[in-house]
Amino acid sequence: MNKNKIQYGNRGMSLEDDLNLTNQYYLERQMAVVHKKPTPVQIVKVDYPKRSQAKITEAYYRRASTTDYNGVFQGKYIDFEAKETHNVNLLPLKNFHDHQIKHMRQVMMQQGICFIIVKFSKKQDVYLLDAGILIRYWDLQQTGGRKSIPRETIEREGHLVPQSYLPRLDYLSIVKQVYL
Amino acid sequence: MNKNKIQYGNRGMSLEDDLNLTNQYYLERQMAVVHKKPTPVQIVKVDYPKRSQAKITEAYYRRASTTDYNGVFQGKYIDFEAKETHNVNLLPLKNFHDHQIKHMRQVMMQQGICFIIVKFSKKQDVYLLDAGILIRYWDLQQTGGRKSIPRETIEREGHLVPQSYLPRLDYLSIVKQVYL
Ligand SMILES: [Mg+2]
Ligand SMILES: [Mg+2]
Repeated sequence: MNKNKIQYGNRGMSLEDDLNLTNQYYLERQMAVVHKKPTPVQIVKVDYPKRSQAKITEAYYRRASTTDYNGVFQGKYIDFEAKETHNVNLLPLKNFHDHQIKHMRQVMMQQGICFIIVKFSKKQDVYLLDAGILIRYWDLQQTGGRKSIPRETIEREGHLVPQSYLPRLDYLSIVKQVYL
Repeated sequence: MNKNKIQYGNRGMSLEDDLNLTNQYYLERQMAVVHKKPTPVQIVKVDYPKRSQAKITEAYYRRASTTDYNGVFQGKYIDFEAKETHNVNLLPLKNFHDHQIKHMRQVMMQQGICFIIVKFSKKQDVYLLDAGILIRYWDLQQTGGRKSIPRETIEREGHLVPQSYLPRLDYLSIVKQVYL
């Protein structure tokens, strides 16, 4: 991939920005309804000043118990987590935590469509990988297996997500191929 | 409904508490994966004290652009909003806002299962009402129609949700009847 492609193709936007724009595109065209969940926050103290809006003055980030994105596509439930890595050749499993993996298992048991979207930020390529493959690596790790998913696995068992100006990351085209 | 039923049946828990317990029950039994979305908060200022967790010191509540709950049931997308009212004979439409109604329309267009769960807190009875009926009243209101949904409509076109100790509010039993 050459320098131009990096400059014009993605222009330094984060994976999350690109996914939000993509979801907005899908929403406007009635192709899918997918939203990012709000960041979970534990609210401790709130001020209610007169004649103005409530102000939260003490709060803490909570660990998410689910994944980042979910929604509906042709009646079916879609659920995914997005991860960006600076590593060139692998996706470290420490990018995920227990609760997220547990949630993905639950979604798969319930026949939901569940995957991760991985961006290798150096090359700026993005892959969709079924959650089952992540879970396989996760479980192997528990019994002494490697602490990351190799890029080759993601290339071979995942699917390159088409990038363009609109939609930025057409992951729905992959979902149609793989899950319908 | 007599006094005993009020005392022992629900014991003053909020609709949200009851739904959260119900969802936990469904989750543990692999019947469905449904979560309440975190309250959306706009974070303005964060302190990062040494050797302790990040503290949010200025934040504001944002208006939710979707409904409160969503998830998956047998592969299908489920989406609902929960509302409690002290009114005895009606559910005021001012309990909903534009964004939520828009979201419900989008979900229905995408063939998701979409409804509201309404609790009349005086009598403590709870109904599941398809989002299509709410939207019908919402649209009529725009052209001079009434500003609420009468209780009789909810009784007639909705479905009484069974209450027990476990699960507290068995809305899934209604979903199976009505949507599958
Ligand atoms: Mg993420
Ligand atoms: Mg609500």
